[in-house]
Amino acid sequence: MIKILEITLLFDFYGELLTPHQRQVFELYYLNDLSLGEISEQLGISRQGVHDAIKRTEKILYGYEDKLGLVHRFYEQKGHLQQILGKMESLMEHRKVDPEVVDELREIKNLVKQVIGEA
Amino acid sequence: MIKILEITLLFDFYGELLTPHQRQVFELYYLNDLSLGEISEQLGISRQGVHDAIKRTEKILYGYEDKLGLVHRFYEQKGHLQQILGKMESLMEHRKVDPEVVDELREIKNLVKQVIGEA
Repeated sequence: MIKILEITLLFDFYGELLTPHQRQVFELYYLNDLSLGEISEQLGISRQGVHDAIKRTEKILYGYEDKLGLVHRFYEQKGHLQQILGKMESLMEHRKVDPEVVDELREIKNLVKQVIGEA
Repeated sequence: MIKILEITLLFDFYGELLTPHQRQVFELYYLNDLSLGEISEQLGISRQGVHDAIKRTEKILYGYEDKLGLVHRFYEQKGHLQQILGKMESLMEHRKVDPEVVDELREIKNLVKQVIGEA
């Protein structure tokens, strides 16, 4: 996975476990795309301090993933649900499926999509 | 939810974030069903110490749930997947469903069951 995507996903899952300061530095760097220098100026801490805070926060986030594995689980589940969705779509085009049944299948498919959205 | 069920589910999700000592006391009390006195004897700490450790651990687990909400999410998702399963089962009994389609539906249903198992 691309590092920036992985790290922001980790932040999505475990961000609430960080301190407000760690969250702030992380957001400025990864979400607002500010440079180390800009963050340093904005928060009144050294450039090295900003750098260290980011590295420490990354380490904490990866540490939570090692223990809880939520991001891994998220991808695994999403993959399975998408497989289900694919099979339902094929079935809707099956020559022996009655239009009434297609409607029912469409409804179920939308429920699966909702679960993917919240997965 | 029954407290014991809730607390063991919290432990399932967040147990890895506890210290080995917290995990050990929790397991002896909630999973192995030992009394405070028995745990006290086994670990060589006071009965009050065991009691405090259990209360502290419960508080930590509820604190993680307040921040990450995994148990809440688990129930929500499980509910939606069970709803999907129910709808698929009704559909399989629909008078306009061809036996070939029923086989396909059964396969998809089993995939949904797998996702519930891992939800």
